[in-house]
This record gives sequence, structure tokens and C-alpha cells, in this order.
Amino acid sequence: MDNKTVITIGRQFGSGGREIGIRLAKKLDIPFYDKEIISLTAEKMNMDKEDVEIHDEKSPGSIISFGSLFSFYDRPVPDKIFFAQKEIIREISEKPCVIVGRCADYILKGHKNILSVFISASLSERAKRKKEIMKNFSEENLLDYLRQTDKKRAIYYGYYTENIWGIAETYDLCLDSGKFGIDGCVDLIISAIEAKKI
Amino acid sequence: MDNKTVITIGRQFGSGGREIGIRLAKKLDIPFYDKEIISLTAEKMNMDKEDVEIHDEKSPGSIISFGSLFSFYDRPVPDKIFFAQKEIIREISEKPCVIVGRCADYILKGHKNILSVFISASLSERAKRKKEIMKNFSEENLLDYLRQTDKKRAIYYGYYTENIWGIAETYDLCLDSGKFGIDGCVDLIISAIEAKKI
Repeated sequence: MDNKTVITIGRQFGSGGREIGIRLAKKLDIPFYDKEIISLTAEKMNMDKEDVEIHDEKSPGSIISFGSLFSFYDRPVPDKIFFAQKEIIREISEKPCVIVGRCADYILKGHKNILSVFISASLSERAKRKKEIMKNFSEENLLDYLRQTDKKRAIYYGYYTENIWGIAETYDLCLDSGKFGIDGCVDLIISAIEAKKI
Repeated sequence: MDNKTVITIGRQFGSGGREIGIRLAKKLDIPFYDKEIISLTAEKMNMDKEDVEIHDEKSPGSIISFGSLFSFYDRPVPDKIFFAQKEIIREISEKPCVIVGRCADYILKGHKNILSVFISASLSERAKRKKEIMKNFSEENLLDYLRQTDKKRAIYYGYYTENIWGIAETYDLCLDSGKFGIDGCVDLIISAIEAKKI
């Protein structure tokens, strides 16, 4: 099969998008990038990894950040991180790979061989996935946290792109991981790589 | 393969969702319902097919319509049509079939064997599809018509359901027909029927 494709994965928090990306990359034997992009950004910007992480996948409005409209060097930190990640995403996408989040589908618009995927799941399915690792959260707080994280992602995506996060029109393929399971989603993405015309 | 599934197809205007449904039903050898529901509704309501068609897939706000909050018999015509179509959709979904539009995914929520699909495509791709049969429209008017028809569908869907039309979270599977082509979408829906867990 053709595995020259760069696959970008947008995802609702708790939908298993990261896990799907990891298994997909393994099956296709291509590199996987999610939090790996944070390390690459820190290196590129000569910043601490922890400082990049605070601003990762956030728009300037969502954290205290200073900047000026007039000088690139005075831009808010999230903007500088976005610009650095944009360069990194363009570099790594010269070879087939899986990239999770970070507006990669938008950054790579016009890339010759791309498949943009979005993974969703019902709120209850996502709460079930996150419950084990977020044991300290009450049921109510966990649901709030899921919703808020998705809102932050939607704001971040809307701020840096011309598209709307999470709507079908933005992506080539959207899958409900609750319906197909993690491995079912991996297999369907592979079928989609084979089916795509462009 | 399991072809006991009822497949519902939501679609952007001009995305080829109807064509995908026709070919899918043929391939699975199961009935196809789109405008066929209009005839069934007219029969059930003892109305002229043309009168049903005016109100089909529209919410009360989008056409001049009278009704009362207090009596079912005084409900606006689109409501009466929706209620009749709801019954029809529940009846036809007792056997495997493909149903296009008419909030079928929402009406059949909880159905034991369902796959809800949404088909989108870029505005330019949809304009290309519709250009041939809408020859009298200027390029500008055609694009306006595409956008307006989608807005009407979104309003209709939002009025009669608790979900949002066209967002990934609402459906099990969303496909860009421009990316995969009509037959590519048919094949991916068949793969999804096989992949689904529930």
C-alpha cells in the first residue's frame, strides 16, 4: 500500500486520538509526533521544554501573555511557539509521518499527500477513558474538564487557522472512536489512505 | 459481511451524498430512501406530494406556516410532516436500508444496528457538481445557493434534534467526497459497517 501519506489527527480530549496515532504510526512504520513537537520546539527556540508546554496548543487569549502588534520579537509567546511549530511541522512532513494536533492539517494545506483526520467520541465514552488517570476528579469536574479542554482547542484552532475545529467540512475523515474502537479507527484510516484520490 | 445495518446519510448540498447512498444501497442490495420518503409521507398524511415537498426538510421558521402551541392538529405543517416522517423512518428501519437526510440519525438514536454518516465537500467541489444541472445560475448565485441550502438544512436539523448538523461529534463517520470520490466513499462506508463495534 501507499504509505507516503502524512496523516494529521485532530481530536476531542479523551477520544483516544493520540493512541490511534501511535498505533497507526507503528502499523505504517512511520514516525509519530505529538508531545515530541514540544521537545523539538524547545530546542528550536532555545527554551525550557516546560515553558513551551505551558503555551502548547493555546492561543494568546487563554494565558497571560504580553506582545505587540508591531514587532515579531514582541509577539505573544504562543504566537512565537506557533510560528516555530509551523516550521517544524513543514520540516517533518517532508517524510511520511503521523502528526497529532497543533493545526497541522491547516499548516500542511496544499501538501501533495495528506490525509486529515478528526477523532471524536461521546462525552460519556471520553469520561470513561479519562477516569482511570484522573482519579482525583469528581464525575462533574471531569466532565467540565473535558468540555473546557475541547473549548480551548477550538479557540486555539480558530485563532491560528481560517477553519472551524471539529466540523466535518474541515477534515477529510472524521471517526467516532466509541463506535469503531481504537483499532477499528486505525484500520479505517488505513482504508482511507488507500481510497483517497488526491 | 454484516449488511443488517441501517445507514443514515446527512450531507452538504452538492456533496454527492444522495449518489453515494444510491450506489451503497445497490451494492448492499438494500432499499434506498431519500425523496421516496416524500411519497410515503404524502400517502400517510393524505396530502399532495407537491405540498409535502414544499415543507420537506424545513423548519417552521423557514416558510410561512401557521400553528398553535396548544393543539397537535394546529401544529405548523412542517411539524406534522416531521412527525409523520419520524413514524415512517422508524417503520422502514426495521429492515436494513439507506436513509438520506430528514434527521434519520437522530430519530433512530438507540436503534440496535445503525451507522450515521455525513458527507461534505469543499464549496468549489460542490459548485462543480451542481454547475451542470443548475446552468441558469451565475457562479456567484450558485455559491450563494449552496451556502443557503446548507444553512436551511442546519436550521431544520437543529430545530428537530438536540444535535448540531455537520459537526464530527454528531455522526459516526464523516467523509469528504472530494477527497475520496463517490465510489471511494461507498467503499469506506462498507469498511465502516464491518469495523463498527456497536
